[in-house]
Amino acid sequence: MKYVYGFNEGDATMKDLLGGKGANLAEMTRMGLPVPQGFTITTEACLRYVRHRTMPKGLMDQVRESVADLEEQTGKVFGGEKDMLLLSVRSGAKFSMPGMMDTILNLGLNDRTVEDLAKATSDPRFAYDSYRRFIQMFGDVVMEVEHEKFEAILLEVRESEGVKLDHEISIEGLKRVISEYQALLKGLGREFPQDPWVQLRMSVEAVFGSWDNPRAITYRRLNKIPDDLGTAVNVQMMVFGNMGMASATGVAFTRNPATGEKEYYGEYLINAQGEDVVAGIRTPIPLENLDKDMKKVFLDLKKVFERLEKHFTDMQDFEFTVENGTLFILQTRNGKRTPQAAVKIAVDMADEGLIDRNTAIARVIPEQLETLLHRQIDPDIDVEPIATGLSASPGAASGAVVFNADDSVKWRDDGKKTLLVRIETRPDDIHGFDASEGILTATGGMTSHAAVVARSMGKPCVAGAEAVRIDYAERRMTIGDQVIEEGDLITIDGTKGEVMLGELPMVEAEISGDLERFLSWADAVRRLGVRANADTPEGARQALRFGAEGIGLCRTERMFNAPDRLPFVVAMILADDQTARKPILEKLFEMQRSDFFEIFTIMGTRPVTVRLLDPPLHEFMPSRSGLARELELLRTAKTMAKVNGDISTEMLTDELIEEIAGEGLERVDIMIEQRANMLEKMKDLFEVNPMLGHRGVRLGITHPDIYEMQIRAIAYAVAELIKAGKKPNVEIMVPQVAIVEELRIIRDIVAKVLLEVSDEYGFALPIRYGTMIEVVRACLIADQIASKVEFFSFGTNDLTQATFSFSREDAEGKFLPAYEVLELVKGNPFSTLDGEGVADLMRIAVERGRSTSPELKVGICGEHGGDPDSIRIVHGIGLDYVSCSPFRIPIARLAAARAALELE
Amino acid sequence: MKYVYGFNEGDATMKDLLGGKGANLAEMTRMGLPVPQGFTITTEACLRYVRHRTMPKGLMDQVRESVADLEEQTGKVFGGEKDMLLLSVRSGAKFSMPGMMDTILNLGLNDRTVEDLAKATSDPRFAYDSYRRFIQMFGDVVMEVEHEKFEAILLEVRESEGVKLDHEISIEGLKRVISEYQALLKGLGREFPQDPWVQLRMSVEAVFGSWDNPRAITYRRLNKIPDDLGTAVNVQMMVFGNMGMASATGVAFTRNPATGEKEYYGEYLINAQGEDVVAGIRTPIPLENLDKDMKKVFLDLKKVFERLEKHFTDMQDFEFTVENGTLFILQTRNGKRTPQAAVKIAVDMADEGLIDRNTAIARVIPEQLETLLHRQIDPDIDVEPIATGLSASPGAASGAVVFNADDSVKWRDDGKKTLLVRIETRPDDIHGFDASEGILTATGGMTSHAAVVARSMGKPCVAGAEAVRIDYAERRMTIGDQVIEEGDLITIDGTKGEVMLGELPMVEAEISGDLERFLSWADAVRRLGVRANADTPEGARQALRFGAEGIGLCRTERMFNAPDRLPFVVAMILADDQTARKPILEKLFEMQRSDFFEIFTIMGTRPVTVRLLDPPLHEFMPSRSGLARELELLRTAKTMAKVNGDISTEMLTDELIEEIAGEGLERVDIMIEQRANMLEKMKDLFEVNPMLGHRGVRLGITHPDIYEMQIRAIAYAVAELIKAGKKPNVEIMVPQVAIVEELRIIRDIVAKVLLEVSDEYGFALPIRYGTMIEVVRACLIADQIASKVEFFSFGTNDLTQATFSFSREDAEGKFLPAYEVLELVKGNPFSTLDGEGVADLMRIAVERGRSTSPELKVGICGEHGGDPDSIRIVHGIGLDYVSCSPFRIPIARLAAARAALELE
Repeated sequence: MKYVYGFNEGDATMKDLLGGKGANLAEMTRMGLPVPQGFTITTEACLRYVRHRTMPKGLMDQVRESVADLEEQTGKVFGGEKDMLLLSVRSGAKFSMPGMMDTILNLGLNDRTVEDLAKATSDPRFAYDSYRRFIQMFGDVVMEVEHEKFEAILLEVRESEGVKLDHEISIEGLKRVISEYQALLKGLGREFPQDPWVQLRMSVEAVFGSWDNPRAITYRRLNKIPDDLGTAVNVQMMVFGNMGMASATGVAFTRNPATGEKEYYGEYLINAQGEDVVAGIRTPIPLENLDKDMKKVFLDLKKVFERLEKHFTDMQDFEFTVENGTLFILQTRNGKRTPQAAVKIAVDMADEGLIDRNTAIARVIPEQLETLLHRQIDPDIDVEPIATGLSASPGAASGAVVFNADDSVKWRDDGKKTLLVRIETRPDDIHGFDASEGILTATGGMTSHAAVVARSMGKPCVAGAEAVRIDYAERRMTIGDQVIEEGDLITIDGTKGEVMLGELPMVEAEISGDLERFLSWADAVRRLGVRANADTPEGARQALRFGAEGIGLCRTERMFNAPDRLPFVVAMILADDQTARKPILEKLFEMQRSDFFEIFTIMGTRPVTVRLLDPPLHEFMPSRSGLARELELLRTAKTMAKVNGDISTEMLTDELIEEIAGEGLERVDIMIEQRANMLEKMKDLFEVNPMLGHRGVRLGITHPDIYEMQIRAIAYAVAELIKAGKKPNVEIMVPQVAIVEELRIIRDIVAKVLLEVSDEYGFALPIRYGTMIEVVRACLIADQIASKVEFFSFGTNDLTQATFSFSREDAEGKFLPAYEVLELVKGNPFSTLDGEGVADLMRIAVERGRSTSPELKVGICGEHGGDPDSIRIVHGIGLDYVSCSPFRIPIARLAAARAALELE
Repeated sequence: MKYVYGFNEGDATMKDLLGGKGANLAEMTRMGLPVPQGFTITTEACLRYVRHRTMPKGLMDQVRESVADLEEQTGKVFGGEKDMLLLSVRSGAKFSMPGMMDTILNLGLNDRTVEDLAKATSDPRFAYDSYRRFIQMFGDVVMEVEHEKFEAILLEVRESEGVKLDHEISIEGLKRVISEYQALLKGLGREFPQDPWVQLRMSVEAVFGSWDNPRAITYRRLNKIPDDLGTAVNVQMMVFGNMGMASATGVAFTRNPATGEKEYYGEYLINAQGEDVVAGIRTPIPLENLDKDMKKVFLDLKKVFERLEKHFTDMQDFEFTVENGTLFILQTRNGKRTPQAAVKIAVDMADEGLIDRNTAIARVIPEQLETLLHRQIDPDIDVEPIATGLSASPGAASGAVVFNADDSVKWRDDGKKTLLVRIETRPDDIHGFDASEGILTATGGMTSHAAVVARSMGKPCVAGAEAVRIDYAERRMTIGDQVIEEGDLITIDGTKGEVMLGELPMVEAEISGDLERFLSWADAVRRLGVRANADTPEGARQALRFGAEGIGLCRTERMFNAPDRLPFVVAMILADDQTARKPILEKLFEMQRSDFFEIFTIMGTRPVTVRLLDPPLHEFMPSRSGLARELELLRTAKTMAKVNGDISTEMLTDELIEEIAGEGLERVDIMIEQRANMLEKMKDLFEVNPMLGHRGVRLGITHPDIYEMQIRAIAYAVAELIKAGKKPNVEIMVPQVAIVEELRIIRDIVAKVLLEVSDEYGFALPIRYGTMIEVVRACLIADQIASKVEFFSFGTNDLTQATFSFSREDAEGKFLPAYEVLELVKGNPFSTLDGEGVADLMRIAVERGRSTSPELKVGICGEHGGDPDSIRIVHGIGLDYVSCSPFRIPIARLAAARAALELE
């Protein structure tokens, strides 16, 4: 078994075996770039080590051979006296992985060779400093002694010599450090090995072992990197940037990783080793200065820039060292970049002809676009958050703290920007969402009311910031000792889930320039249509700005929740029968018609899919426990009033006191009766499992007048637009269908209404009829369903719940985190579509649906529609479009393009 | 198109075309039995009429031809003067159908022919009475004039003549009735037609039209009879049982339809027409008396008995008429019979060699067995119920009313039988179920706690008897004006959902004699195994008595609910972590081990499938709103005590007053704190959709120590039995599995525990490992799941909920009734398996599961397992066994046999 490859034996394609760093070192060797020679121990060797906890048989023999080759190539001797070969040992997995053991430099030095080195280089400072560094690194990463213990020794020596910086320490001082380091290790029972071969062997083992350290495992889990890759180990001849003023070390990017500009970007230090750049003790010099410091090296470096980019056809991030005026490249890799830079580099490289447009599309990860689409806190600002919560809705916002929705509106009307802070929010807070810049809640998860509404409105939201304690009565919140009063300014970052004090500077988002061109390339490639979920005119406009081709989900219940409508909705629910509901529905009809008219007008000829009322009615009602509590308080107040002769306000809430308005017991009696009545009615609405209850089409079947009102509102809006010469493109969608006959009954209502409205206007209304596919049974009988509708739209949130038999709300708060930790699920199935169960049902539904109706249009709406991995799956299933929240439209456009490129 | 068949043209196989009655009349004609001749108009003609609302072209021509044939055969003339042919017209669908127009007799009479008839028969009374009857029947059923209007005229004439009975009316009186009948019809604009052909045509149309009358439609819906069968019309020569003392009319059964005994059974009236027997004015004479009254006819009739049974090989119910000493058979059909008779007749006929055993099996409808298996109220007793509710759990019970579970126990210990009456029940009432004879609740549906627990324990239960008002404080219930105090005796009939006053006599159930033999025949035929759902030793014994081959579902949570365990379960739930839970689990372990030991002992070598804990933990906790209410009351009491200086007990409940026990405010403070703490903990347990929450294997994953305790209890019980030389046959079943890894994690626990216990005892524990398949995703990944388990058991209640996305509890209380009325569902999918969606998923699961593991054993547990239609479906899917409540075991045995006979 070959475990060791010389750099001259490999190439860039061998990343699986040699790791990313090793493969690129080999590739650069092939290119003839000045790479310090060395060899790579394979990932295979690592895996064997991890599996058996012992070095693979024959490995060290191969290492010895390779060291011998290296000695031959370089004319130096490992552990030798003159021209001694010192080595660096670095880990190098297929994917760059923080948390693993990284680097050991100067390996080969010991108490004897350090003196040889001092003589050979005539630079004892250099030699003893190198040795000191080596022991410290080796002690830290191989022998696992805390870094602080070495620093303490250094500090003590610096103090005793009265100097401030390490490189000011005298040679004698360095010798003292070295001996105290060794004493430290010995004292801990971990003697520093003098034998270079032992040093090498232990270093290789340490790299192997670090594959399985907890930080590395966590990183792999978070980044979905498989556990069975292993890491390679690169053993390389040391070159020294700290050999004097003709030596230097630095890092360089072939383009600016922050902006994407094509410019020489990087920094260096004269007379330094790599770790000095990282340690931040000396301030590195910008790369363009190298032109002055080392003219020839700079010219060599420019050539390296050209050759690396041309060869790897991507922006490179490389390390270099100049040893006595000679340039060495120590490693190169594709450089990490900001989202903005990712887009610019991809577009520029395509324009330069370095890559084609499809490759450009593959260069940007869809999720990266997210931060480009929301207002952000100026990235140059660095402020500590005072609290953290869930990243419930992305974007950043600043404003004055208010604690209820009415105040948001009041303050907004006074021209003030507010942030709405609540323990949790409810439908009757919705006007506060609209009036404030963002929302912060102390409780609630990713699907809490606050989170869902904020996302759909594109308002930044941090939810479930548990450290936040809110006192509504005192209009005050506290975070630890920090007290924030109403009106104090705070900033939230919904992308990161952070809360900061004060108003921070922001950077606005827009789709223009490079991003616009980039997305147009994606549009040209993708097969999936991209629509938006939008319930309001603002949402529709936002969707268009981000490139939506239509609205795939317009939820009518969001309109119901508006503060001017909610009282009518409540009245509608409390009405005993159709007769009582009729006048209320008339009012709601007028409101919905004008809502629809506005949204259809904005969307022009693009399709708009309107979903009929979906949630159970009790969702629109005030909280039962709140009502019950008020009732209890009022009754107690009454009882006590009998004793005291007066209404004691001591235990009443502000709202109740206000409502009593000093009118006395009669008023209290009325309030008691009104609340008792409402509670009684709400008993009928109570459901044990609201998710599986009386909602969607089931509501439409038992309350056909509500659906008819909505259908009528849609029909009139369409008719008015046609009359005005427009061409609205509207689809009516029925939610929660499980039984084919449900669709027939609602279709009869649609047909009746359309006929009536057509007759009134004298022209036909081209409104299509379709259904959500969000119930398991609907997937199974999709062949029957397809005969009743013109389109399907998957509701994969509900479908996921039904397929797993766990509700999102309950799962995310309870066992799903444990499931993710135990790796029972590959990520949260509510974020990324379950590729086995749910996708299988979808495949069945598409197959059966199209068996009846080959031209059936099939889409997906809901959060999965904006998730790149899910988009890849639904592309594979053969859907026609995805629909997602406006802010995820660009992500979906890119993800759809990448799916098309990868799967076809 | 041939629409009309003479009786001599058809046979018994032509029921689709000629209806049941027509086909049997033809058959009897072929047999040479004395059938008054006639013809049948086909169901096809009816369907055309119903479709086009007009008589099919050519139909009346064919009728005329057939009447001509009839005239030729009989030598009589339709509408003629002497030897006039009078006709009867009767409907006759394929299935007997109440609610349809039935019979018109004496058709052909009019003002002229009645006089001819009077002359020809020399019996004017007979003639005018026949005419009077004809007009009345015709007016009622053809012309749709209320029956009461005719009766009023009859009454008036009787009164004016001073007689009491119709046949005492004078000839003149009859003539007056006739003319007033005709005047009545004319006055309503519906003149009585004198033309016999018009009479015939209108009668046929009336029969056709009655196919679509609301009562007939409702009947078809209830009995699952298709709407597109239509009815035939039988036109038959009249024969007269009312021609004097040598004439008679009667009905006969070839065996006793109540007991099944082989004896001459029936009754007759001398000198009467058929309707007189039905009308109940004269008391018919038992058939055995005919031997004395009409010796020759009796001998003829005996031959008819023999021939009919031999020919039709089933018990026949037939009508006969004797006209002047000549016997005519008017119709025959398979006789309806009681469940008891059904079994006896089937067994006897097989013993007699009349039918084979498979035919015998097909002769008893499985549901019929239900009433044979529960104690019933003596069927001879006729008492009006004082209230009705849902038939929540079958069987009848009497006892003294008590209003709480503790009283049930107390009274039982005093040797008294009680009925537990509650507004609703909770898990902590379970000891009351055990102690009482039956349960009555005022609220709750078929899946309420009371209903489910009662069914599983085989206790009669009437649930949701809404008229019952319960006052716990006064220990009293009222139903309307009726007041029932604690200790008063009542009887409930859980089969019918009725509540009666007093203690009624009962009839006990047992499986023996005919039923035992009958079921053993079914056992020989069926392919499906039949197991019981049983959670207690009593349940296990009951299951064995009813013939269960094992326990397919032993729910451990039922054991948790026992009153001696619930406090430990609550403590277990409230414990903060595994350390705190440990000592509590030790206690529960001891209890569960002895439970299992007892059940396994009873079941011997038969398989027992134990399901690990399934329901969410909060189900074991007291009600949150109850706790909150107590807290509120205690706090109010405290506040008021500050004002008054004394604890006012005015507003406290009895329980709270008792708990305070006069100890004052300190005690109240402790009670407040204790309740506040418990409420706080319960907040964490709250779930929005408990059905989709933290339960089943998800609980096992997050609380592995609870599952481990249960597994250990099972393992020790098995080990102890093996040690005692027994061969227990135990299976561990994991509920709610959605992800294959869940099974791996629990299997690791099982393996660990079994290894430990095996080591301790020194022998292997042959316990099998399997899973419920009740989550949609589990069906889809059944191929993966099958590699981890030895058996599947479908939980089709949960699977149905997930497939339809509606919860049983919420659906049955809200929209499911409307769905059944609108025919959106064919019956309640929670009672009978959904043959489309859910069955399709099951098919997928079985197919995929067996693709991995061809020998995989697959069963179904839960209510569908005892439903005959569902059993038929799962037989078709290829399951190995069903498991159902003990009382449905015999039904399942029969249904499984019938499925095997029908499908193979």
